[in-house]
Amino acid sequence: MGKFRKQHKMFIAEGSINVLDFIKSGLQPVDLFANGSWIERNTNFLDFENINTVSEKELARITALKNPSEVLAVFNLPENKIPLPSKINGLVLMLDDIKDPGNLGTIIRTADWFGVKDIICSKQTVDAFNPKVVQATMGSLSRLNVSYSDLTDWLSGVRTETNIYGAVLKGESIKEINKPKNDILVIGSEAHGISADVLKFVNKPITIPSAEVGGAESLNASIATAILLYALLT
Amino acid sequence: MGKFRKQHKMFIAEGSINVLDFIKSGLQPVDLFANGSWIERNTNFLDFENINTVSEKELARITALKNPSEVLAVFNLPENKIPLPSKINGLVLMLDDIKDPGNLGTIIRTADWFGVKDIICSKQTVDAFNPKVVQATMGSLSRLNVSYSDLTDWLSGVRTETNIYGAVLKGESIKEINKPKNDILVIGSEAHGISADVLKFVNKPITIPSAEVGGAESLNASIATAILLYALLT
Repeated sequence: MGKFRKQHKMFIAEGSINVLDFIKSGLQPVDLFANGSWIERNTNFLDFENINTVSEKELARITALKNPSEVLAVFNLPENKIPLPSKINGLVLMLDDIKDPGNLGTIIRTADWFGVKDIICSKQTVDAFNPKVVQATMGSLSRLNVSYSDLTDWLSGVRTETNIYGAVLKGESIKEINKPKNDILVIGSEAHGISADVLKFVNKPITIPSAEVGGAESLNASIATAILLYALLT
Repeated sequence: MGKFRKQHKMFIAEGSINVLDFIKSGLQPVDLFANGSWIERNTNFLDFENINTVSEKELARITALKNPSEVLAVFNLPENKIPLPSKINGLVLMLDDIKDPGNLGTIIRTADWFGVKDIICSKQTVDAFNPKVVQATMGSLSRLNVSYSDLTDWLSGVRTETNIYGAVLKGESIKEINKPKNDILVIGSEAHGISADVLKFVNKPITIPSAEVGGAESLNASIATAILLYALLT
Protein backbone atom coordinates (compact mmCIF):
# COMPACT_ATOMS: atom_id res chain seq x y z
CA MET A 1 0.00 0.00 0.00
CA GLY A 2 1.25 3.52 -0.81
CA LYS A 3 2.65 5.66 2.02
CA PHE A 4 -0.14 8.26 1.81
CA ARG A 5 -2.88 5.61 1.98
CA LYS A 6 -1.16 3.72 4.80
CA GLN A 7 -0.41 6.77 6.98
CA HIS A 8 -3.60 8.72 6.50
CA LYS A 9 -6.04 5.86 5.76
CA MET A 10 -7.33 7.90 2.84
CA PHE A 11 -7.29 7.52 -0.93
CA ILE A 12 -7.59 9.78 -3.94
CA ALA A 13 -10.18 9.40 -6.69
CA GLU A 14 -9.87 11.41 -9.90
CA GLY A 15 -12.25 11.96 -12.78
CA SER A 16 -15.92 12.86 -12.76
CA ILE A 17 -17.34 9.31 -13.00
CA ASN A 18 -15.11 8.00 -10.21
CA VAL A 19 -15.71 10.87 -7.81
CA LEU A 20 -19.48 10.95 -8.38
CA ASP A 21 -19.84 7.17 -8.11
CA PHE A 22 -18.07 7.15 -4.73
CA ILE A 23 -20.27 10.01 -3.50
CA LYS A 24 -23.43 8.23 -4.75
CA SER A 25 -22.30 5.04 -2.97
CA GLY A 26 -22.43 6.95 0.32
CA LEU A 27 -18.80 7.97 0.83
CA GLN A 28 -18.31 11.61 1.79
CA PRO A 29 -15.12 13.29 0.52
CA VAL A 30 -12.70 14.55 3.15
CA ASP A 31 -11.70 17.12 0.54
CA LEU A 32 -12.75 17.84 -3.02
CA PHE A 33 -10.85 19.94 -5.59
CA ALA A 34 -12.46 20.82 -8.91
CA ASN A 35 -12.70 23.56 -11.48
CA GLY A 36 -15.67 25.94 -11.27
CA SER A 37 -17.47 24.47 -14.24
CA TRP A 38 -17.48 20.95 -12.77
CA ILE A 39 -18.77 22.21 -9.41
CA GLU A 40 -21.55 24.16 -11.11
CA ARG A 41 -22.68 21.15 -13.16
CA ASN A 42 -22.65 18.78 -10.17
CA THR A 43 -23.85 21.00 -7.37
CA ASN A 44 -26.78 18.62 -6.62
CA PHE A 45 -24.34 15.95 -5.39
CA LEU A 46 -22.14 18.28 -3.35
CA ASP A 47 -23.96 18.36 -0.04
CA PHE A 48 -20.84 18.54 2.19
CA GLU A 49 -18.04 20.88 3.23
CA ASN A 50 -14.45 21.17 2.03
CA ILE A 51 -15.27 21.85 -1.62
CA ASN A 52 -12.37 23.75 -3.19
CA THR A 53 -12.57 25.55 -6.51
CA VAL A 54 -9.15 25.35 -8.13
CA SER A 55 -7.63 26.21 -11.50
CA GLU A 56 -6.51 23.65 -14.08
CA LYS A 57 -2.92 24.52 -13.25
CA GLU A 58 -3.51 23.66 -9.60
CA LEU A 59 -5.21 20.38 -10.55
CA ALA A 60 -2.22 19.52 -12.72
CA ARG A 61 -0.01 20.09 -9.68
CA ILE A 62 -1.93 17.79 -7.33
CA THR A 63 -2.89 14.96 -9.70
CA ALA A 64 -1.39 11.51 -9.18
CA LEU A 65 -1.94 10.72 -12.88
CA LYS A 66 -0.35 11.78 -16.15
CA ASN A 67 -3.39 13.69 -17.33
CA PRO A 68 -5.24 15.66 -14.67
CA SER A 69 -9.01 15.48 -14.65
CA GLU A 70 -11.37 18.34 -13.77
CA VAL A 71 -12.04 16.91 -10.30
CA LEU A 72 -10.07 15.12 -7.60
CA ALA A 73 -11.40 14.03 -4.20
CA VAL A 74 -9.88 12.55 -1.06
CA PHE A 75 -11.95 9.88 0.75
CA ASN A 76 -11.45 7.79 3.87
CA LEU A 77 -10.33 4.27 2.94
CA PRO A 78 -13.18 1.79 3.40
CA GLU A 79 -12.56 -1.01 5.90
CA ASN A 80 -11.08 -4.28 4.63
CA LYS A 81 -14.26 -6.41 4.84
CA ILE A 82 -13.26 -10.00 4.10
CA PRO A 83 -16.31 -12.16 3.29
CA LEU A 84 -16.78 -15.26 5.44
CA PRO A 85 -15.46 -18.25 3.48
CA SER A 86 -18.27 -20.43 4.80
CA LYS A 87 -20.93 -17.96 3.63
CA ILE A 88 -20.15 -17.12 0.03
CA ASN A 89 -22.81 -15.17 -1.83
CA GLY A 90 -22.64 -15.51 -5.64
CA LEU A 91 -19.41 -15.97 -7.59
CA VAL A 92 -16.43 -14.63 -5.62
CA LEU A 93 -13.50 -13.50 -7.75
CA MET A 94 -10.09 -14.28 -6.21
CA LEU A 95 -6.93 -12.57 -7.50
CA ASP A 96 -3.61 -14.29 -6.84
CA ASP A 97 -0.93 -11.58 -7.20
CA ILE A 98 -2.20 -9.30 -9.97
CA LYS A 99 0.60 -6.73 -10.18
CA ASP A 100 -0.38 -4.31 -12.92
CA PRO A 101 -2.65 -1.40 -11.81
CA GLY A 102 -4.29 -1.19 -15.25
CA ASN A 103 -5.12 -4.90 -15.16
CA LEU A 104 -6.60 -4.70 -11.65
CA GLY A 105 -8.69 -1.64 -12.54
CA THR A 106 -9.99 -3.29 -15.70
CA ILE A 107 -10.78 -6.50 -13.81
CA ILE A 108 -12.81 -4.56 -11.21
CA ARG A 109 -14.72 -2.73 -13.96
CA THR A 110 -15.46 -5.96 -15.83
CA ALA A 111 -16.49 -7.80 -12.64
CA ASP A 112 -18.91 -4.97 -11.90
CA TRP A 113 -20.40 -5.26 -15.42
CA PHE A 114 -21.16 -8.95 -14.78
CA GLY A 115 -22.55 -8.33 -11.28
CA VAL A 116 -19.72 -9.74 -9.13
CA LYS A 117 -20.01 -8.41 -5.56
CA ASP A 118 -16.82 -9.66 -3.86
CA ILE A 119 -13.21 -9.66 -5.00
CA ILE A 120 -10.63 -11.17 -2.65
CA CYS A 121 -7.01 -10.27 -3.40
CA SER A 122 -3.78 -11.86 -2.20
CA LYS A 123 -1.65 -9.53 -0.12
CA GLN A 124 0.82 -9.22 -3.03
CA THR A 125 -1.89 -7.96 -5.39
CA VAL A 126 -1.52 -4.25 -6.22
CA ASP A 127 -3.56 -1.95 -3.94
CA ALA A 128 -7.05 -1.36 -5.34
CA PHE A 129 -6.97 2.23 -4.02
CA ASN A 130 -3.80 3.08 -5.95
CA PRO A 131 -4.82 6.14 -8.08
CA LYS A 132 -4.06 4.30 -11.36
CA VAL A 133 -6.32 1.41 -10.34
CA VAL A 134 -9.12 3.74 -9.22
CA GLN A 135 -8.84 5.56 -12.57
CA ALA A 136 -9.11 2.33 -14.60
CA THR A 137 -12.17 1.09 -12.67
CA MET A 138 -14.25 3.97 -14.09
CA GLY A 139 -16.36 4.16 -10.94
CA SER A 140 -16.81 0.43 -10.41
CA LEU A 141 -14.63 0.33 -7.28
CA SER A 142 -17.46 2.15 -5.48
CA ARG A 143 -19.90 -0.72 -6.14
CA LEU A 144 -17.81 -3.81 -5.30
CA ASN A 145 -16.23 -5.05 -2.09
CA VAL A 146 -12.50 -5.54 -2.74
CA SER A 147 -10.69 -7.10 0.23
CA TYR A 148 -7.17 -8.40 0.94
CA SER A 149 -6.48 -11.67 2.69
CA ASP A 150 -4.13 -14.63 2.92
CA LEU A 151 -5.65 -16.76 0.16
CA THR A 152 -4.70 -20.22 1.42
CA ASP A 153 -5.93 -19.42 4.95
CA TRP A 154 -9.19 -18.16 3.53
CA LEU A 155 -9.64 -21.08 1.12
CA SER A 156 -9.12 -23.50 4.04
CA GLY A 157 -12.40 -22.21 5.47
CA VAL A 158 -14.71 -22.76 2.47
CA ARG A 159 -17.38 -25.48 2.51
CA THR A 160 -16.40 -28.75 0.83
CA GLU A 161 -19.16 -28.44 -1.80
CA THR A 162 -17.83 -25.08 -3.06
CA ASN A 163 -16.58 -25.14 -6.66
CA ILE A 164 -13.18 -23.46 -6.93
CA TYR A 165 -12.59 -22.69 -10.60
CA GLY A 166 -9.09 -21.83 -11.81
CA ALA A 167 -7.84 -21.20 -15.34
CA VAL A 168 -5.05 -23.60 -16.30
CA LEU A 169 -3.56 -24.77 -19.61
CA LYS A 170 -5.22 -28.21 -19.77
CA GLY A 171 -8.54 -28.01 -17.93
CA GLU A 172 -12.13 -28.56 -18.97
CA SER A 173 -13.28 -26.20 -21.75
CA ILE A 174 -15.36 -23.34 -20.36
CA LYS A 175 -17.85 -24.16 -23.13
CA GLU A 176 -18.80 -27.30 -21.14
CA ILE A 177 -19.07 -25.85 -17.61
CA ASN A 178 -22.28 -25.66 -15.56
CA LYS A 179 -23.19 -22.22 -14.21
CA PRO A 180 -21.66 -21.55 -10.79
CA LYS A 181 -23.72 -20.64 -7.72
CA ASN A 182 -21.95 -19.69 -4.51
CA ASP A 183 -18.53 -20.51 -5.90
CA ILE A 184 -15.05 -19.08 -6.49
CA LEU A 185 -13.06 -18.17 -9.61
CA VAL A 186 -9.28 -17.85 -9.10
CA ILE A 187 -7.16 -15.73 -11.47
CA GLY A 188 -3.37 -16.08 -11.39
CA SER A 189 -0.70 -13.44 -11.79
CA GLU A 190 0.39 -12.00 -15.14
CA ALA A 191 3.80 -13.68 -15.03
CA HIS A 192 3.28 -16.93 -13.12
CA GLY A 193 -0.41 -17.90 -13.26
CA ILE A 194 -1.98 -19.41 -10.15
CA SER A 195 0.61 -20.09 -7.41
CA ALA A 196 1.24 -23.71 -6.40
CA ASP A 197 -0.22 -23.22 -2.89
CA VAL A 198 -3.48 -21.82 -4.21
CA LEU A 199 -3.68 -24.30 -7.11
CA LYS A 200 -4.01 -27.14 -4.55
CA PHE A 201 -7.46 -25.78 -3.67
CA VAL A 202 -8.69 -25.54 -7.29
CA ASN A 203 -11.18 -28.39 -7.79
CA LYS A 204 -12.52 -27.22 -11.19
CA PRO A 205 -9.58 -26.59 -13.53
CA ILE A 206 -10.90 -24.81 -16.64
CA THR A 207 -9.47 -23.60 -19.96
CA ILE A 208 -10.39 -20.96 -22.54
CA PRO A 209 -10.45 -22.61 -25.98
CA SER A 210 -8.03 -21.19 -28.56
CA ALA A 211 -7.42 -21.51 -32.30
CA GLU A 212 -6.36 -25.01 -33.31
CA VAL A 213 -3.24 -23.91 -35.16
CA GLY A 214 -0.49 -21.50 -34.03
CA GLY A 215 -1.59 -18.43 -32.14
CA ALA A 216 -0.70 -16.65 -28.91
CA GLU A 217 0.66 -18.73 -26.04
CA SER A 218 -1.41 -16.98 -23.41
CA LEU A 219 -3.91 -14.20 -22.76
CA ASN A 220 -3.53 -11.04 -20.71
CA ALA A 221 -4.84 -11.59 -17.16
CA SER A 222 -7.66 -9.05 -17.43
CA ILE A 223 -8.73 -10.50 -20.80
CA ALA A 224 -8.81 -14.05 -19.43
CA THR A 225 -10.86 -12.86 -16.42
CA ALA A 226 -13.39 -11.16 -18.70
CA ILE A 227 -13.90 -14.22 -20.90
CA LEU A 228 -14.23 -16.49 -17.84
CA LEU A 229 -16.77 -14.19 -16.16
CA TYR A 230 -18.76 -13.96 -19.39
CA ALA A 231 -18.74 -17.75 -19.82
CA LEU A 232 -19.61 -18.48 -16.18
CA LEU A 233 -22.11 -15.73 -15.44
CA THR A 234 -24.18 -15.15 -18.59
CA MET B 1 2.95 6.95 -37.42
CA GLY B 2 6.11 7.83 -35.45
CA LYS B 3 8.85 9.84 -37.16
CA PHE B 4 11.41 7.02 -37.01
CA ARG B 5 9.01 4.50 -38.55
CA LYS B 6 7.85 6.95 -41.24
CA GLN B 7 11.31 8.13 -42.28
CA HIS B 8 13.20 4.86 -42.15
CA LYS B 9 10.34 2.40 -42.82
CA MET B 10 11.61 0.36 -39.89
CA PHE B 11 10.25 -0.56 -36.47
CA ILE B 12 11.67 -1.69 -33.14
CA ALA B 13 10.70 -4.90 -31.34
CA GLU B 14 11.79 -5.48 -27.76
CA GLY B 15 11.67 -8.54 -25.54
CA SER B 16 12.69 -12.11 -26.25
CA ILE B 17 9.26 -13.43 -27.33
CA ASN B 18 8.64 -10.51 -29.69
CA VAL B 19 12.06 -10.56 -31.34
CA LEU B 20 12.13 -14.36 -31.75
CA ASP B 21 8.55 -14.53 -33.07
CA PHE B 22 9.34 -11.94 -35.77
CA ILE B 23 12.50 -13.84 -36.74
CA LYS B 24 10.59 -17.16 -36.85
CA SER B 25 7.91 -15.52 -39.04
CA GLY B 26 10.63 -14.86 -41.64
CA LEU B 27 11.59 -11.24 -40.92
CA GLN B 28 15.33 -10.63 -40.73
CA PRO B 29 16.50 -7.93 -38.31
CA VAL B 30 18.29 -4.95 -39.81
CA ASP B 31 20.08 -4.72 -36.46
CA LEU B 32 19.89 -6.67 -33.20
CA PHE B 33 21.17 -5.56 -29.79
CA ALA B 34 21.26 -8.00 -26.87
CA ASN B 35 23.25 -8.97 -23.84
CA GLY B 36 25.71 -11.85 -24.18
CA SER B 37 23.60 -14.32 -22.26
CA TRP B 38 20.58 -13.85 -24.54
CA ILE B 39 22.71 -14.25 -27.67
CA GLU B 40 24.27 -17.44 -26.32
CA ARG B 41 20.87 -18.96 -25.47
CA ASN B 42 19.35 -18.11 -28.86
CA THR B 43 22.29 -18.61 -31.21
CA ASN B 44 20.27 -21.17 -33.27
CA PHE B 45 17.92 -18.44 -34.47
CA LEU B 46 20.60 -15.84 -35.21
CA ASP B 47 21.60 -16.74 -38.74
CA PHE B 48 22.22 -13.17 -39.96
CA GLU B 49 24.66 -10.27 -39.59
CA ASN B 50 24.48 -7.12 -37.47
CA ILE B 51 24.22 -8.86 -34.11
CA ASN B 52 25.55 -6.53 -31.43
CA THR B 53 26.45 -7.62 -27.92
CA VAL B 54 25.69 -4.72 -25.59
CA SER B 55 25.58 -4.14 -21.84
CA GLU B 56 22.41 -3.64 -19.83
CA LYS B 57 23.32 0.03 -19.46
CA GLU B 58 23.46 0.40 -23.22
CA LEU B 59 20.11 -1.41 -23.63
CA ALA B 60 18.60 0.96 -21.07
CA ARG B 61 19.85 3.87 -23.20
CA ILE B 62 18.32 2.65 -26.49
CA THR B 63 15.01 1.22 -25.25
CA ALA B 64 11.74 2.90 -26.24
CA LEU B 65 10.04 1.45 -23.14
CA LYS B 66 10.16 2.13 -19.42
CA ASN B 67 11.84 -1.17 -18.58
CA PRO B 68 14.50 -2.34 -21.02
CA SER B 69 14.48 -5.99 -22.03
CA GLU B 70 17.57 -8.13 -22.73
CA VAL B 71 17.10 -7.83 -26.49
CA LEU B 72 15.99 -5.18 -28.98
CA ALA B 73 15.85 -5.57 -32.76
CA VAL B 74 15.18 -3.26 -35.69
CA PHE B 75 13.16 -4.71 -38.59
CA ASN B 76 11.91 -3.36 -41.91
CA LEU B 77 8.24 -2.43 -41.68
CA PRO B 78 6.05 -4.98 -43.47
CA GLU B 79 3.97 -3.65 -46.38
CA ASN B 80 0.42 -2.45 -45.68
CA LYS B 81 -1.46 -5.40 -47.24
CA ILE B 82 -5.16 -4.52 -47.21
CA PRO B 83 -7.34 -7.61 -47.78
CA LEU B 84 -9.76 -7.41 -50.71
CA PRO B 85 -13.20 -6.55 -49.30
CA SER B 86 -14.85 -8.87 -51.81
CA LYS B 87 -12.68 -11.83 -50.77
CA ILE B 88 -12.81 -12.00 -46.98
CA ASN B 89 -11.29 -15.11 -45.42
CA GLY B 90 -12.61 -15.90 -41.92
CA LEU B 91 -13.69 -13.26 -39.41
CA VAL B 92 -12.00 -9.91 -40.15
CA LEU B 93 -11.56 -7.66 -37.12
CA MET B 94 -12.06 -3.94 -37.88
CA LEU B 95 -10.85 -1.28 -35.44
CA ASP B 96 -12.48 2.14 -35.64
CA ASP B 97 -10.05 4.56 -33.94
CA ILE B 98 -8.51 2.55 -31.08
CA LYS B 99 -6.18 5.14 -29.53
CA ASP B 100 -4.49 3.41 -26.59
CA PRO B 101 -1.32 1.42 -27.45
CA GLY B 102 -1.95 -1.06 -24.62
CA ASN B 103 -5.48 -1.72 -25.86
CA LEU B 104 -4.33 -2.25 -29.46
CA GLY B 105 -1.52 -4.60 -28.39
CA THR B 106 -3.87 -6.61 -26.19
CA ILE B 107 -6.47 -6.79 -28.98
CA ILE B 108 -3.85 -8.14 -31.42
CA ARG B 109 -2.70 -10.75 -28.87
CA THR B 110 -6.29 -11.86 -28.15
CA ALA B 111 -7.21 -11.97 -31.85
CA ASP B 112 -4.18 -14.21 -32.44
CA TRP B 113 -5.31 -16.54 -29.61
CA PHE B 114 -8.67 -17.01 -31.34
CA GLY B 115 -7.15 -17.47 -34.81
CA VAL B 116 -8.06 -14.15 -36.45
CA LYS B 117 -5.85 -13.55 -39.52
CA ASP B 118 -6.73 -10.00 -40.60
CA ILE B 119 -7.17 -6.80 -38.63
CA ILE B 120 -8.12 -3.66 -40.55
CA CYS B 121 -7.58 -0.39 -38.69
CA SER B 122 -8.93 3.08 -39.40
CA LYS B 123 -6.22 5.60 -40.19
CA GLN B 124 -6.77 7.24 -36.76
CA THR B 125 -6.05 3.99 -34.93
CA VAL B 126 -2.70 4.02 -33.12
CA ASP B 127 0.19 2.57 -35.17
CA ALA B 128 0.53 -1.19 -34.59
CA PHE B 129 4.33 -0.89 -34.88
CA ASN B 130 4.55 1.66 -32.05
CA PRO B 131 6.99 0.04 -29.53
CA LYS B 132 4.35 -0.01 -26.76
CA VAL B 133 1.90 -1.84 -29.03
CA VAL B 134 4.54 -4.33 -30.19
CA GLN B 135 5.43 -4.99 -26.53
CA ALA B 136 1.80 -5.66 -25.54
CA THR B 137 1.22 -8.07 -28.45
CA MET B 138 3.72 -10.54 -26.92
CA GLY B 139 4.80 -11.78 -30.34
CA SER B 140 1.33 -11.96 -31.89
CA LEU B 141 1.96 -9.07 -34.29
CA SER B 142 4.28 -11.38 -36.22
CA ARG B 143 1.44 -13.82 -36.96
CA LEU B 144 -1.40 -11.49 -38.01
CA ASN B 145 -1.86 -9.11 -40.91
CA VAL B 146 -2.63 -5.66 -39.48
CA SER B 147 -3.45 -3.11 -42.18
CA TYR B 148 -4.66 0.52 -42.29
CA SER B 149 -7.39 1.72 -44.58
CA ASP B 150 -10.28 4.15 -44.96
CA LEU B 151 -12.99 2.03 -43.33
CA THR B 152 -16.04 3.38 -45.15
CA ASP B 153 -14.32 3.07 -48.56
CA TRP B 154 -13.34 -0.49 -47.73
CA LEU B 155 -16.77 -1.45 -46.37
CA SER B 156 -18.37 -0.14 -49.57
CA GLY B 157 -16.63 -2.98 -51.40
CA VAL B 158 -17.83 -5.96 -49.34
CA ARG B 159 -20.35 -8.45 -50.75
CA THR B 160 -23.97 -7.85 -49.81
CA GLU B 161 -24.23 -11.20 -47.95
CA THR B 162 -21.38 -10.30 -45.57
CA ASN B 163 -22.41 -10.01 -41.91
CA ILE B 164 -20.99 -6.85 -40.36
CA TYR B 165 -21.20 -7.22 -36.58
CA GLY B 166 -20.82 -4.19 -34.34
CA ALA B 167 -21.14 -3.89 -30.57
CA VAL B 168 -23.82 -1.39 -29.59
CA LEU B 169 -25.86 -0.75 -26.42
CA LYS B 170 -29.14 -2.31 -27.58
CA GLY B 171 -28.35 -5.05 -30.08
CA GLU B 172 -29.02 -8.78 -30.18
CA SER B 173 -27.41 -10.66 -27.28
CA ILE B 174 -24.20 -12.40 -28.38
CA LYS B 175 -25.60 -15.50 -26.64
CA GLU B 176 -28.09 -15.83 -29.54
CA ILE B 177 -25.80 -15.22 -32.51
CA ASN B 178 -24.95 -17.79 -35.21
CA LYS B 179 -21.26 -18.44 -35.81
CA PRO B 180 -19.81 -16.09 -38.45
CA LYS B 181 -18.04 -17.34 -41.59
CA ASN B 182 -16.39 -14.82 -43.88
CA ASP B 183 -17.67 -11.85 -41.94
CA ILE B 184 -16.57 -8.66 -40.15
CA LEU B 185 -16.56 -7.56 -36.48
CA VAL B 186 -16.27 -3.79 -35.90
CA ILE B 187 -14.91 -2.42 -32.60
CA GLY B 188 -15.36 1.27 -31.80
CA SER B 189 -13.02 3.68 -30.07
CA GLU B 190 -12.52 3.83 -26.30
CA ALA B 191 -14.23 7.20 -25.96
CA HIS B 192 -16.86 7.28 -28.72
CA GLY B 193 -17.70 3.72 -29.78
CA ILE B 194 -18.32 3.04 -33.47
CA SER B 195 -18.37 6.26 -35.53
CA ALA B 196 -21.64 7.24 -37.24
CA ASP B 197 -20.20 6.72 -40.76
CA VAL B 198 -19.08 3.18 -40.00
CA LEU B 199 -22.21 2.32 -37.99
CA LYS B 200 -24.28 2.74 -41.18
CA PHE B 201 -22.61 -0.42 -42.53
CA VAL B 202 -23.26 -2.55 -39.41
CA ASN B 203 -26.05 -4.99 -40.31
CA LYS B 204 -25.74 -7.21 -37.19
CA PRO B 205 -25.83 -4.96 -34.10
CA ILE B 206 -24.86 -7.08 -31.08
CA THR B 207 -24.58 -6.59 -27.30
CA ILE B 208 -22.67 -8.23 -24.45
CA PRO B 209 -25.13 -9.12 -21.67
CA SER B 210 -24.51 -7.48 -18.29
CA ALA B 211 -25.78 -7.84 -14.73
CA GLU B 212 -29.46 -6.98 -14.40
CA VAL B 213 -28.99 -4.45 -11.59
CA GLY B 214 -26.48 -1.60 -11.35
CA GLY B 215 -23.00 -2.26 -12.60
CA ALA B 216 -20.49 -0.63 -14.92
CA GLU B 217 -21.82 1.49 -17.78
CA SER B 218 -19.38 0.12 -20.31
CA LEU B 219 -16.44 -2.22 -20.86
CA ASN B 220 -12.87 -1.41 -21.85
CA ALA B 221 -12.46 -1.75 -25.65
CA SER B 222 -9.96 -4.63 -25.46
CA ILE B 223 -12.19 -6.48 -22.96
CA ALA B 224 -15.26 -6.10 -25.17
CA THR B 225 -13.27 -7.34 -28.19
CA ALA B 226 -12.12 -10.42 -26.28
CA ILE B 227 -15.62 -11.40 -25.14
CA LEU B 228 -17.01 -10.86 -28.66
CA LEU B 229 -14.27 -12.94 -30.29
CA TYR B 230 -14.80 -15.72 -27.73
CA ALA B 231 -18.56 -15.69 -28.30
CA LEU B 232 -18.31 -15.57 -32.10
CA LEU B 233 -15.37 -17.89 -32.71
CA THR B 234 -15.54 -20.71 -30.16
